[in-house]
Amino acid sequence: MIIDCHGHYTTTPPGVGIWRETQKAAVAADPDHVGEKGRIAVSDDEIRESLEGAQLRLQRERGTDLTIFSPRASWMGHHVGNEHTSTFWSQHQNELIRRVCDLYPANFAPVCQLPQSPGAAVDGSVRELRRCVVEMGFVGCNVNPDPSGGSWSGPPLWDRYWWPLWETMCELDVPAMIHVSASCNENLHTTSSHYLGADTTAFTHALSSGFMKDFPGLRFVIPHGGGAVPYHWGRFKGLAADNGWDFDHLLDHIWFDTCVYHQRGIDLLLDVVPVDNILFASEMVGAVRGVDPDTGHHYDDTKRYLDGAVLGDEDRRRIFDSNIRRVYPRLA
Amino acid sequence: MIIDCHGHYTTTPPGVGIWRETQKAAVAADPDHVGEKGRIAVSDDEIRESLEGAQLRLQRERGTDLTIFSPRASWMGHHVGNEHTSTFWSQHQNELIRRVCDLYPANFAPVCQLPQSPGAAVDGSVRELRRCVVEMGFVGCNVNPDPSGGSWSGPPLWDRYWWPLWETMCELDVPAMIHVSASCNENLHTTSSHYLGADTTAFTHALSSGFMKDFPGLRFVIPHGGGAVPYHWGRFKGLAADNGWDFDHLLDHIWFDTCVYHQRGIDLLLDVVPVDNILFASEMVGAVRGVDPDTGHHYDDTKRYLDGAVLGDEDRRRIFDSNIRRVYPRLA
Repeated sequence: MIIDCHGHYTTTPPGVGIWRETQKAAVAADPDHVGEKGRIAVSDDEIRESLEGAQLRLQRERGTDLTIFSPRASWMGHHVGNEHTSTFWSQHQNELIRRVCDLYPANFAPVCQLPQSPGAAVDGSVRELRRCVVEMGFVGCNVNPDPSGGSWSGPPLWDRYWWPLWETMCELDVPAMIHVSASCNENLHTTSSHYLGADTTAFTHALSSGFMKDFPGLRFVIPHGGGAVPYHWGRFKGLAADNGWDFDHLLDHIWFDTCVYHQRGIDLLLDVVPVDNILFASEMVGAVRGVDPDTGHHYDDTKRYLDGAVLGDEDRRRIFDSNIRRVYPRLA
Repeated sequence: MIIDCHGHYTTTPPGVGIWRETQKAAVAADPDHVGEKGRIAVSDDEIRESLEGAQLRLQRERGTDLTIFSPRASWMGHHVGNEHTSTFWSQHQNELIRRVCDLYPANFAPVCQLPQSPGAAVDGSVRELRRCVVEMGFVGCNVNPDPSGGSWSGPPLWDRYWWPLWETMCELDVPAMIHVSASCNENLHTTSSHYLGADTTAFTHALSSGFMKDFPGLRFVIPHGGGAVPYHWGRFKGLAADNGWDFDHLLDHIWFDTCVYHQRGIDLLLDVVPVDNILFASEMVGAVRGVDPDTGHHYDDTKRYLDGAVLGDEDRRRIFDSNIRRVYPRLA
């Protein structure tokens, strides 16, 4: 079986964006706006239509079986409005993911976004995680390490602020993909410098603090091939040695996905990162949607790069399947 | 000849740090503190001693000839104090680099830091650049794309704010290495997530805006192997195609150094980036000072990785020598 651990619902029907734009307008007019959850007007047929020509078609064409599916990352927008803004929006987005998975249980498994908000307590995120996993059968969550949207003004991942969330993840046996949302800082471009910088930053939080040791079952997936980390594997190993950071233990807690959009990048990832710490992913219909003129194939068709890599059958099976089941045990 | 284009004076005699700590204490007590330049008490013998056992010894041991040498990057600290703070400190640091190069003209060529300061006009940096190049024979400068030290609150590199500096660089025919200083944001670790994130961010500023086209002779060196960029070459090419950004023109303006501290990383850099856009560098006695237990050699002995790479003699000569002379014509 081929499991893609990183997909977002980027093709939502128009009703979703309309609800969100209305909410954003209200909170722009009044920063303390609470509002109400209301309803998002989207039919099952609209959901089917939004997926059939996109993610489902690509699953068939590329030969993948199951996508671990979460709300559109760049739309999480935790910096928008206040805690209520994020709460209602996250609930809607997660319920929509649940509907997708109910319509196509063989094709998608649900991962939730959390109602993070700058300055808000983590309790709301803990509650939403518990609701999604316990009541709605979700298998993991996305955690935004910078809910400020590009000024990095909140507590680092090693700060005690996060501990109730880490404890709940351990209790529920679910991993987090550490994934920022859109940048609202003109210095940082969302799907390149912000995403990749955040991946590197999340890894560094874990490495430099060693905090994950205190949470034996805690599991992070670092998306986009780990940002800059594998390319600078020597730098990180050297910094760890210089500073007394425990590099090796980290690999009990950290996995890198394969969202690297050229063959040579994937080759490097496979060469330096232990195979047990690599999870297949494409983030298809995501940041990069075009065709590479050098290959004639979509940049984000990462399965092709893995098929083209020097890799034994057993290692291939781990990356496509068994590693992912180990990180997301609730898939069973 | 083997030219290392990225070295910082990280081993300054004690008088330098003492002067700076005194200045930092004064401006911590009074944010509007101006003070005066005063003198840094360092003798020529102290300078010799600080280099003989470090950079000069390593040049001999590793077989490199000339290091393009600038003040310690992490000490630039543009976020500290006010514009006066940065002005006096930058002048001292640059004058110290001049003394180093006067003592060892065959071993070092001078590059300056600029008196950047959050919210300050760029004029002071233009003046100091002109002083260093015209009066003191400097061959380039370091530009900090985030003088806030990790909150990215200033204008991006494409903003008109910077234009007088770009114009002066073109007029004087000197390049800039785009290099941040220490992070004062606990989310960002100086020599890993902050440095590498800034490298990726600087490249993205140039790519997404296309502003360098307006400055035909403008040349940027992106240090630390370009941050995450070469590893994500496909992502950046794909984003450029999706967004109508001109990827190819950028290579008339951008060079990557070889501060990547393992063989596989260097191999990737050489495989994806055109050889004419790669400059040899080690940043020795810098971020990573230890020995790689897997190789028995220093992580930052990047010449070894280039020696170990599949590379023709002519390409090797370009990376070690002629590309660097082209980017830094004042070396002549």
